[in-house]
Amino acid sequence: MKPDDARRVFEGKQISVDVERWGERDREIVRHPGAVAIVAVDAAGRVTLVRQLREPARKQLLELPAGTREPDEEPLSTAKRELEEEAGLAGGDWRLAATFYSTPGFCDEVVRVYFAEGVEETERAPQEDEEIELVRVPVEELEPLLPEIEDAKTLAGLLLYLRER
Amino acid sequence: MKPDDARRVFEGKQISVDVERWGERDREIVRHPGAVAIVAVDAAGRVTLVRQLREPARKQLLELPAGTREPDEEPLSTAKRELEEEAGLAGGDWRLAATFYSTPGFCDEVVRVYFAEGVEETERAPQEDEEIELVRVPVEELEPLLPEIEDAKTLAGLLLYLRER
Repeated sequence: MKPDDARRVFEGKQISVDVERWGERDREIVRHPGAVAIVAVDAAGRVTLVRQLREPARKQLLELPAGTREPDEEPLSTAKRELEEEAGLAGGDWRLAATFYSTPGFCDEVVRVYFAEGVEETERAPQEDEEIELVRVPVEELEPLLPEIEDAKTLAGLLLYLRER
Repeated sequence: MKPDDARRVFEGKQISVDVERWGERDREIVRHPGAVAIVAVDAAGRVTLVRQLREPARKQLLELPAGTREPDEEPLSTAKRELEEEAGLAGGDWRLAATFYSTPGFCDEVVRVYFAEGVEETERAPQEDEEIELVRVPVEELEPLLPEIEDAKTLAGLLLYLRER
């Protein structure tokens, strides 16, 4: 399926916006390269979450480690790179747990959630300038934490992980 | 928390985009009025899902009934209006199940998911022009359907509902 017509109305560094003609309707569509998020569990059974300022929300949010795909990067490579950069974690057994659109009414962003079990701390420290606080949560303490989660991919990822255990 | 500076770079009918200055960083932020989604369960224990074209995805997706807030509309009113318009369902016991950002890295959209149990069909037919197919799924058949769900709010909403049963 394709639009009858399309024009770019905003070209940014993180996102772009197209207005597309579909039959008699105009659709404003945000273009995004796609993202990954990781439920990373260490040998002690702790999931690492990250707390950071999310400018659109005007506050800090507690989320899964996540990141945006670079051009031509495989999603699994993005996920392993982001987990190491953001959380200083590597290794473990990886699998793709879910693939979904974050908000398909007006945006083409696809999020892939990975489970990584048995991850270990690396020597590489997380990037200081990202101002990210790492929060380690034992798996059995995830359930009571869910009402505090305000991010769709984190909520879906943790619920999927808890369901499969 | 507030940006140091902001300028609107796209003003649309469905969304707008601002570029904000936060310290040394520019952030491209999509502005959205917010949305609701409903896990609506009828007396026979069936959840109503909707299948419709999502232009950004270039295909049809299976999702919870959902909609965008009108200006100054209370989220619960939006949810009841959308459920009636999209699915022809009304009544039942309503509660707010979750509130989250759909993709907080670059968008301020907040999604509220409601559970509505005991909904009934109304005389009012769903709007024909929305080209929405209604799919009724018995609650016990939701679990095997999850791998087909490609929408974040639907996945999170159904997982939350299944967890609370």
